[in-house]
Amino acid sequence: MMNFSCPTSGGKDEGRVTLAHGEGGRLTRQLIRRQLIPQFDNSFLAPLGDAAVLPTLDGPPVLTTDGFVVSPLFFPGGDIGCLSVYGTTNDLAVAGARPRWLSLGLILEEGFPEALLERVLASVRRAADEVGVKVVTGDTKVVPRGAADQLFITTTGLGERLTPAPDGPHKLAVGDILLVTGSIGRHGMAVLAAREQLGLDPMPASDCGALWPAVESLWLAGVTPRAMRDATRGGVAAVLQEWAESCGHTLTLDGPSIPVAAEVRGMSELLGIDPLHVANEGTMVVGVAPDRADATLAALRQVSISRDAVVVGKVERRGLSPVMIRRSLGRPQPLDEPLGAPLPRIC
Amino acid sequence: MMNFSCPTSGGKDEGRVTLAHGEGGRLTRQLIRRQLIPQFDNSFLAPLGDAAVLPTLDGPPVLTTDGFVVSPLFFPGGDIGCLSVYGTTNDLAVAGARPRWLSLGLILEEGFPEALLERVLASVRRAADEVGVKVVTGDTKVVPRGAADQLFITTTGLGERLTPAPDGPHKLAVGDILLVTGSIGRHGMAVLAAREQLGLDPMPASDCGALWPAVESLWLAGVTPRAMRDATRGGVAAVLQEWAESCGHTLTLDGPSIPVAAEVRGMSELLGIDPLHVANEGTMVVGVAPDRADATLAALRQVSISRDAVVVGKVERRGLSPVMIRRSLGRPQPLDEPLGAPLPRIC
Repeated sequence: MMNFSCPTSGGKDEGRVTLAHGEGGRLTRQLIRRQLIPQFDNSFLAPLGDAAVLPTLDGPPVLTTDGFVVSPLFFPGGDIGCLSVYGTTNDLAVAGARPRWLSLGLILEEGFPEALLERVLASVRRAADEVGVKVVTGDTKVVPRGAADQLFITTTGLGERLTPAPDGPHKLAVGDILLVTGSIGRHGMAVLAAREQLGLDPMPASDCGALWPAVESLWLAGVTPRAMRDATRGGVAAVLQEWAESCGHTLTLDGPSIPVAAEVRGMSELLGIDPLHVANEGTMVVGVAPDRADATLAALRQVSISRDAVVVGKVERRGLSPVMIRRSLGRPQPLDEPLGAPLPRIC
Repeated sequence: MMNFSCPTSGGKDEGRVTLAHGEGGRLTRQLIRRQLIPQFDNSFLAPLGDAAVLPTLDGPPVLTTDGFVVSPLFFPGGDIGCLSVYGTTNDLAVAGARPRWLSLGLILEEGFPEALLERVLASVRRAADEVGVKVVTGDTKVVPRGAADQLFITTTGLGERLTPAPDGPHKLAVGDILLVTGSIGRHGMAVLAAREQLGLDPMPASDCGALWPAVESLWLAGVTPRAMRDATRGGVAAVLQEWAESCGHTLTLDGPSIPVAAEVRGMSELLGIDPLHVANEGTMVVGVAPDRADATLAALRQVSISRDAVVVGKVERRGLSPVMIRRSLGRPQPLDEPLGAPLPRIC
């Protein structure tokens, strides 16, 4: 899956990105015409370096940005291209906003194969089509060999706020219910297994996907959660730590209820990494009032990305620790927050 | 001016950014609290990784993005921090939009000194204050030593379209007047001189600055140019090539009218690089109808960034070449477009 072979022939720079491609001259315009325009042609697209003038938004603007430095660029279940679209539009979705527009900033290492760039950009396009966003502006920089590792992407998403929108985690109240929308830890484990070439069978696959359909399903069903958050870097544990800090209560997880795929559990035991600390890229945590839990689950289960949504815990009065977990039948124990997550460059 | 000394003591990682700072856990939140919040605290600021909910815009949204990979990070006249604000807000300004909001994506190399990060972020803040934009969302990634060169910044700007707005370069008509707002080639030459440690006296200083005041001055004076463009990568020549392609006419420059500072001219002769091909970061090209040229010059000269605005050419019927230059008394000659500009990593 790490297909870095490149159908070049002839000179060593043929089919590869050169420094001159990033310098604003004729070669930059050629690269834009050859690579960017075919993927992203739309009436709002601004030639790179320019600004896109967009139609008036239907609601207050919501803005978010994310850098993607994942290694390897391709992994089971996704690649840096679709990841850069899902990651950013998911941030809009969980903020209660409909994703509308995307900007795409590329930093390329000199010598990067154009064929690989084309695969990445095609993946950006497919993901953008799926979410219903358009790439309307962008920028390309090329740095000399060794000054960057292959390709970094920074995407910024502009969305329009839904009405009503979630209150946010500071409004979580004692008795509220906590859900996750799918099995956890898949993205981080998939990237790690691909990078370290762990010969696992089956290989874990990333959950890399669009959460907007799940949020839209809730909105169409008239369910407004208190809080939603995609559980990316730091995993579900990081989301809960931040929420507990924000609301001042204790969030208690019921360990056995937390869905973990067999291959993720296997890696987790092998490596001694708790899946609660591992990044997801298409799975969110949702906090809802207790009387809305059933409607929330029903709405989430209507769409593919969140069909395995399940209750995993609840909000309780502040106890010993901000986040607790009942691992089996015993008493709840504090869930430690690692200083930094154990997996670099997973997004 | 390349002060990379860092007041660390004790362990080798003390005062330096580590991989764990980018992984979404407690150290990430500490870095945000220590470095980002003190600079950018405002009521819209979303903790990194989240989305910022903004007030409704006064006009259609205008979106632009730019990556900054300049080397060295600090150079006479500026640094990567203010450059990342000016570069992006200038793109909004020349598109006829008032810059309002900014997102900040940081990609840091492991080991980058926190003291240096603080200097860069303080420069971002000062520039944002000057332009009147707020940094409302951001993202921080850390890659291992050797996977990036120190620090890359991607900024995305959201602005609101002014009414009336420029038509764009496709509307340039025969007889229209071309202006530049200041002496050209300063940014590219300043970065090159700093990087190559050319011991010039005086050193060229970057023109790195905010063009929004110049655009606002035009707008307040009721002058709507046909087209405006900041002459960044590829310099004034790249802007004119693109405009000529867009309008189908020939753009003819009067060589002796083009302002070039003595130190830039000196470097230009030394290195054999035409200042017309060298990047600017606070100088724009403006095309106006002939009967608005005086009003345009008067409005531009009221603000400091464009006080040296001057007429440098005009739009003529399409001749031999899209861009021509009259170097001295002789006949106009075609202005060649280099395939790629000669200066990598100048922005």
